[in-house]
Amino acid sequence: MEAQNNPGAPAYQRIASTYRGKIASGELRPGDQLPTESAIADQFGVARQTVRTGLSLLVTEGLIVARRPRGHFVREREHMLYRPQERSRPRPATPEVDRFSQQISAEGRVPSQRIEVSLVQATPDLAERLRVETGATIVARRRVRSINGEPTNINDSHFPLDIVKDSEIMSPAYVPRGTDQVLADLGHRQDRAIDEIFVRMPTPEEIHRLGLGLGTPVAVHYDTGYTADGTPVRCTVNVLPGDRHKIVFERSWHDD
Amino acid sequence: MEAQNNPGAPAYQRIASTYRGKIASGELRPGDQLPTESAIADQFGVARQTVRTGLSLLVTEGLIVARRPRGHFVREREHMLYRPQERSRPRPATPEVDRFSQQISAEGRVPSQRIEVSLVQATPDLAERLRVETGATIVARRRVRSINGEPTNINDSHFPLDIVKDSEIMSPAYVPRGTDQVLADLGHRQDRAIDEIFVRMPTPEEIHRLGLGLGTPVAVHYDTGYTADGTPVRCTVNVLPGDRHKIVFERSWHDD
Repeated sequence: MEAQNNPGAPAYQRIASTYRGKIASGELRPGDQLPTESAIADQFGVARQTVRTGLSLLVTEGLIVARRPRGHFVREREHMLYRPQERSRPRPATPEVDRFSQQISAEGRVPSQRIEVSLVQATPDLAERLRVETGATIVARRRVRSINGEPTNINDSHFPLDIVKDSEIMSPAYVPRGTDQVLADLGHRQDRAIDEIFVRMPTPEEIHRLGLGLGTPVAVHYDTGYTADGTPVRCTVNVLPGDRHKIVFERSWHDD
Repeated sequence: MEAQNNPGAPAYQRIASTYRGKIASGELRPGDQLPTESAIADQFGVARQTVRTGLSLLVTEGLIVARRPRGHFVREREHMLYRPQERSRPRPATPEVDRFSQQISAEGRVPSQRIEVSLVQATPDLAERLRVETGATIVARRRVRSINGEPTNINDSHFPLDIVKDSEIMSPAYVPRGTDQVLADLGHRQDRAIDEIFVRMPTPEEIHRLGLGLGTPVAVHYDTGYTADGTPVRCTVNVLPGDRHKIVFERSWHDD
């Protein structure tokens, strides 16, 4: 199946397959530089354009990045840990999570965010989750979170207008006690949530807001919060570029 | 930012932006056919090649599919519900999950699977999670799950060789009581698990095994199971095409 094992495959496919294999096996590590185009051309006995075609496949697959004029490098996947459970379960991570994670906030990096609040019409996806009519007016509290000034993810929370209209959720400022506490103080304490994760290519708006490169799909995480009587009071849409995040949940066989 | 609102943008971008907007707003629904290339060309006053360039952007973004010779259609996102928590929490879904889900198994579709068992060398990602040396021999129990004969997702479980070598996990047959119960019977009952979800473009092998189309990223779900003393005994790698799955978790503010 792999062109590497198929000498009849076109040369550009054999080149792509060779370096794909070296990355998969760990022979080439994140950040490593690939040989120059002319070195690869000599090795395979082909023209440089053939090498470029082969490497462009790996760029589209998100495995390598082109940094002209220096050359091609194995993509560095420095994944920020993203833990939906932290919203409802603010306890310390277990040792396994610590072992897996590279907590960016613990690495001396500087997080920041920009908040905008607006009244918007509910799109079908939000209308379904907040149980309002499509086109109904809802409150959108939109954030782009950055690390060291680089946009990292999108975090847009949506609320039914009637329950938040006179609250500080309407102000585009950071709310120290958290919007979940504001909802609770308004009599809408969340009791449970549903996390839904979809995977797709980014929209042009997301590419623009997040500065995404080629071959970078996104996870879209809908986090819908319900009160004890099952009424949805919040729907947060997080857009997480695949090259910057891993989403982590912990599960115990004893929960509930 | 959107070319639709920018009359100076090239025509192919304005065409892409127009139909992107119609899909986002719900004016065009999944399965709907777009106007013909010549109808769009007439409307925008451009050549058909310009229309094709604009629509090809939306194909790459995974928003529409080309079904020649019939035309272009809004992609149908019939998402199979994928619930990692079912492994450790076999209780009925809450009403919200039922409302969200379109349970394929409940729709009279026919699931099937193909299992292969082999001894493989641990790649760095598996070695880290199973705490063995990279290159150490481990057991891989690989499955492709299909619905109505169409490959749907990849589900590859990996085990340290020493704990499963004399068990039925080594046989490429369905294990009615489940591999988790086999591990428990061998004295390795799992107590908790870590779910890690990454998002990336598929490898050529995944494209081949799953029959993926253009603009289809995958979620890669590592599910690592630990015994009560914190020893990893299983690492399952699930590859979930983004156009066929949504990953769902439920959370309660009362867990633990």
